[in-house]
Amino acid sequence: MKIYLKLSYDGSKYNGFQKQPDGSAIQNLLEDALSNLFNKKIVTQGASRTDTGVHAFAQVVTFEVDDDVTIPSNKYDKILNQRLPNDIVVVESKMVDESFHPRYSCTQKTYIYQIYNGEYMPPIYNNYMTNVKKPLNAEKMNEACKYLIGEHDFLGFSNKSDNDLKSTVREIYSANVVRNGDIITFEICGNGFLYNMVRIIVGTLIDIGLEKREQSVILDVIKSRNRNLAAQTAKSQGLILKDICHTE
Amino acid sequence: MKIYLKLSYDGSKYNGFQKQPDGSAIQNLLEDALSNLFNKKIVTQGASRTDTGVHAFAQVVTFEVDDDVTIPSNKYDKILNQRLPNDIVVVESKMVDESFHPRYSCTQKTYIYQIYNGEYMPPIYNNYMTNVKKPLNAEKMNEACKYLIGEHDFLGFSNKSDNDLKSTVREIYSANVVRNGDIITFEICGNGFLYNMVRIIVGTLIDIGLEKREQSVILDVIKSRNRNLAAQTAKSQGLILKDICHTE
Repeated sequence: MKIYLKLSYDGSKYNGFQKQPDGSAIQNLLEDALSNLFNKKIVTQGASRTDTGVHAFAQVVTFEVDDDVTIPSNKYDKILNQRLPNDIVVVESKMVDESFHPRYSCTQKTYIYQIYNGEYMPPIYNNYMTNVKKPLNAEKMNEACKYLIGEHDFLGFSNKSDNDLKSTVREIYSANVVRNGDIITFEICGNGFLYNMVRIIVGTLIDIGLEKREQSVILDVIKSRNRNLAAQTAKSQGLILKDICHTE
Repeated sequence: MKIYLKLSYDGSKYNGFQKQPDGSAIQNLLEDALSNLFNKKIVTQGASRTDTGVHAFAQVVTFEVDDDVTIPSNKYDKILNQRLPNDIVVVESKMVDESFHPRYSCTQKTYIYQIYNGEYMPPIYNNYMTNVKKPLNAEKMNEACKYLIGEHDFLGFSNKSDNDLKSTVREIYSANVVRNGDIITFEICGNGFLYNMVRIIVGTLIDIGLEKREQSVILDVIKSRNRNLAAQTAKSQGLILKDICHTE
């Protein structure tokens, strides 16, 4: 039987989601808790690697349980939350079809990225936002988002070469920038994202907001597939995996 | 010469603002940084004790410097930020009149308190919000705020006896509750607050939101001056000292 878990976590203390040999990733702690519960090694599949310092409201993970296990599939949230540290929370658990795969069945992911735009960022935001001290033109950043929408080759917005990937084409369904006082929030939804893609887009939008680059640089990066035309990768603090949708 | 500092901090790791014999409070770290800078013991005055786990966007502190000190009064922010941990930030520094006192010259303080109202609070909010799992009626909470406005004896909303205080009368200028999705924010502004007053008001508003108590309980607590009629003190996580105004 395949169990689906939805996780929310604070990534500040962990070496990303994907399991690491030294046990320092969120997936390690989840597998430890599951293996401990079942007294045997449990392997999980995750929807999304998230880097060190990246947070999630909705990471999706699956694992297999033997048919003779009597735990109801909707009780793993409460059972695991007693065994996980309080910065990792299982918010939903259910049974899914054997054909379900967190990554391959994923139809849509949404990320948000938060920027504190002021000279001194309040320290309560240290792990959750990036500080840009100079004034950002959020309207220009928002306008530039229109160039992201649709199906494009995003290789220029990735920190990996295309040799590593079957396809570097992704479809973006929506993208926008909203200012609320000193806090600027970028939200992007698409069928998938290349390595560091959201953070490189944010870095480039910041340059547009600082009026160091034109909005059309987004188009130039897409058309040229040239990573060097995009700006530097924005810090991981600020990025949150907000939501994931799947076909079931 | 008297120097005014405005501080923003994350209170998660500290034993409150007010200095402690064991050096574990925010004021200890600030005085250490100042004493180290001047090579002599510097004593500071703060506007507001904040309890363990309470945060601030705007704590106000003053200290005296000798007349022969050549540091410009508006440079203490940058100098001290190099000497303080990154969860304590000086956001403003300036010279003030000798008659200025952070506590006695204070005319207005604003606090906010954030509640995550849902079964599973995302862990990124652990240090910054209180989780109430059962649905809260935020409209009823907001309506009840009207009973707080004005000049009242708030002894019933304090965790200290009136023997400890000259007066337990305070004036509240504004108070309201706003829901934004699963996040409920209480904001209150007044000329001063008794010990734990905001957190006891929040605890009582939560009971009103849960429909365990009538809105008029606020009036009952004020009129009776009876702490036992109010609800329990809400957790310190969730409370932020947002702003302070002074006469100069």
